[in-house]
Amino acid sequence: MKVSARNVFHGKVSAITAGAVNSEVELTTDGGHKLVAIVTQASVRELGLAPGKPAFALVKASWVMLLTDDAGVRLSARNRLRGTVSKLVPGAINTDVVLTLPGGSQVHAVITSEAVRELELKEGSPATALIKASHVVLGVAG
Amino acid sequence: MKVSARNVFHGKVSAITAGAVNSEVELTTDGGHKLVAIVTQASVRELGLAPGKPAFALVKASWVMLLTDDAGVRLSARNRLRGTVSKLVPGAINTDVVLTLPGGSQVHAVITSEAVRELELKEGSPATALIKASHVVLGVAG
Amino acid sequence: MKVSARNVFHGKVSAITAGAVNSEVELTTDGGHKLVAIVTQASVRELGLAPGKPAFALVKASWVMLLTDDAGVRLSARNRLRGTVSKLVPGAINTDVVLTLPGGSQVHAVITSEAVRELELKEGSPATALIKASHVVLGVAG
Repeated sequence: MKVSARNVFHGKVSAITAGAVNSEVELTTDGGHKLVAIVTQASVRELGLAPGKPAFALVKASWVMLLTDDAGVRLSARNRLRGTVSKLVPGAINTDVVLTLPGGSQVHAVITSEAVRELELKEGSPATALIKASHVVLGVAG
Repeated sequence: MKVSARNVFHGKVSAITAGAVNSEVELTTDGGHKLVAIVTQASVRELGLAPGKPAFALVKASWVMLLTDDAGVRLSARNRLRGTVSKLVPGAINTDVVLTLPGGSQVHAVITSEAVRELELKEGSPATALIKASHVVLGVAG
Repeated sequence: MKVSARNVFHGKVSAITAGAVNSEVELTTDGGHKLVAIVTQASVRELGLAPGKPAFALVKASWVMLLTDDAGVRLSARNRLRGTVSKLVPGAINTDVVLTLPGGSQVHAVITSEAVRELELKEGSPATALIKASHVVLGVAG
């Protein structure tokens, strides 16, 4: 598979909560991280998603927020991946920030360069990637 | 809290409509604007969201569309914030547009530079920020 | 209507599946493509969406993923539009890629320049645009 999404997480479905139109699917990645995705019920059927099934999650880098100090707040973004900034590729408006998670997985976040300055992000900075469950695309091998 | 999202709106929960997987939460901001967010039921429980509760909304600048002339159309994007362009930071592909709302709140929108030209956006232009309810992250103080 | 979203698809509502909070709305575009949108029930009511009703879909270019080789995988992204790359406007971090679909409709995708290199995208390359149903905004003429 060749896809433009910078973040591809492989793992297994670990839980499914079904609604009328949408379902919440939890993926446990090979690196041991948990990712929750909201997908349509039709997708759950078509992809044959069920607990234990191998699957992968796709997330565009522009859908990832970074948090450096949560000041004790709690957020509705279901997915929080803690890591360390390992690379920054700056542009005029946006910067591509790479976070390396414990275990070695990487997360790309494209955020504004203004935010990079404000959060004082540099190589080695601890940061948390926030990803809304409704921004995760799930896939399975054919 | 230090977060990369350029838009942080503080206010109070003013209404909640619950579904099986998702809930629709309305926040009335301190500036008097209403923002609707779709979050999972699990988030509503974990954040203890209820009418009257202080909360905040996070929206990435790249999730905001700008509209300058609605020509009488109606849109499914639940959140519409009318304001005036107060700043433009242009890049090759994207431009960071800042809208100032009546009351002084600001909204950042990262849109393509092509769109800026097509909409003839400049300082002082009236514009409406459109934000999908499913693109709003909610948070509460710990 | 003047809107920053680079993708505007006109057509007619061809199906609606209602849930408690959200509904899944299928639009058949004038070009014969099918697009599925997840919008709130409140939007379905306010826009008077019903099978046969003329409507349009808005999608920001930054919400579109590109796929060049699906290697037989199946994905939860409900919308897949196959076309040919007809234009690339490169920036430092992001590139605006235009896909032309059979029939002549165009789809803009803003993806990272790194992804453009990795997928070896150039004019004439076949590619598929992936759009999550929850990223589609629907509209109707007033």
